[in-house]
Amino acid sequence: MPEKKKLAIIVHSGTLDKLYCAFILGSTATAMDMEAHLYFTFWGLNMLKKGAMEKAGLPAIYKHMEEPLKKKLKEMNYPTPYDMLKRMKATGLLKIYACTPTMEMFGVKKEELIPEVDTLAGAATFLELAATAETTILV
Amino acid sequence: MPEKKKLAIIVHSGTLDKLYCAFILGSTATAMDMEAHLYFTFWGLNMLKKGAMEKAGLPAIYKHMEEPLKKKLKEMNYPTPYDMLKRMKATGLLKIYACTPTMEMFGVKKEELIPEVDTLAGAATFLELAATAETTILV
Amino acid sequence: MPEKKKLAIIVHSGTLDKLYCAFILGSTATAMDMEAHLYFTFWGLNMLKKGAMEKAGLPAIYKHMEEPLKKKLKEMNYPTPYDMLKRMKATGLLKIYACTPTMEMFGVKKEELIPEVDTLAGAATFLELAATAETTILV
Repeated sequence: MPEKKKLAIIVHSGTLDKLYCAFILGSTATAMDMEAHLYFTFWGLNMLKKGAMEKAGLPAIYKHMEEPLKKKLKEMNYPTPYDMLKRMKATGLLKIYACTPTMEMFGVKKEELIPEVDTLAGAATFLELAATAETTILV
Repeated sequence: MPEKKKLAIIVHSGTLDKLYCAFILGSTATAMDMEAHLYFTFWGLNMLKKGAMEKAGLPAIYKHMEEPLKKKLKEMNYPTPYDMLKRMKATGLLKIYACTPTMEMFGVKKEELIPEVDTLAGAATFLELAATAETTILV
Repeated sequence: MPEKKKLAIIVHSGTLDKLYCAFILGSTATAMDMEAHLYFTFWGLNMLKKGAMEKAGLPAIYKHMEEPLKKKLKEMNYPTPYDMLKRMKATGLLKIYACTPTMEMFGVKKEELIPEVDTLAGAATFLELAATAETTILV
């Protein structure tokens, strides 16, 4: 079986606009039968804590647009970030990495993370993977 | 004719510092006879609305540097972001994509966009292109 | 001798979270015997000025976490960004580029920069390099 194409995303941000960006790209990739590899670090890692993604907001400069945007997304019946993540997971093509140095830095324990996380890993694991990916971005 | 090298940029941000970053890289690429493919999404997409780019500012943390920077750029006769975009366009090597899911999310209509936009497209079109690009980044 | 793999990073941001992100990836790459090429532009370039990196803070939305994070890093004996940069440099695998258009834009002189900078260069030099890199990201 030929290897699938890969999209690798470093999720550094924890704001709603960047989570949607990462998850829309990831969902599109899995719908195209590509593998999506998401490495959560820094503020992104903090969003893997149970219940955190539901509270994600917009960065300071766009704070005034947070409520209108959330209202609009609800009207559109747009999936939440966590819903999108679970749908991607269901395709079998998504792999989620939690950055271990960030976990130590912020004192995050494994049992605090959502169950969809596949691997706790340092940057070496991810760079190894990214070197074989067609496309790598950081959000 | 051999295929040209490609630079692909996802323009997620709508702030002046990130627009200049994307457009300086894009202009440099076209000057090197590379193709530049710019996919505008989220805050970036909102900057494709007629008259929007002219009002772009700096993010909250650097707000106090907005006026000094704009003054300096004027003294240097530095091109505005929209001028840079039009010059890139004139090379025939720039392709501009407007993200359709973002247009729906923010209620942006096609006729509100600047005429330089080439294609309204979803993420699949862009990921297909990015997989063939030498370099892909997100700003 | 076979060519080494390359990681290319455009350091656009000047905040502590993004500097650590770039330097942790860069350090990991050099530890894996990859070359790390860091191109500092915009706010990132401003962090190459002597004494600047020591004052780096967090973006507006995370300002309240700046002191707790710095305290935690000190407790962990975590290296500062500048320490990490010097350690990467000592491997002989790190190359630092300072973006010349940014230097003009912000009126930064060569003698104000830290001595670890290898090259003053425009975007063309970096795009040329990035086209041969396994992975390129922008932070």
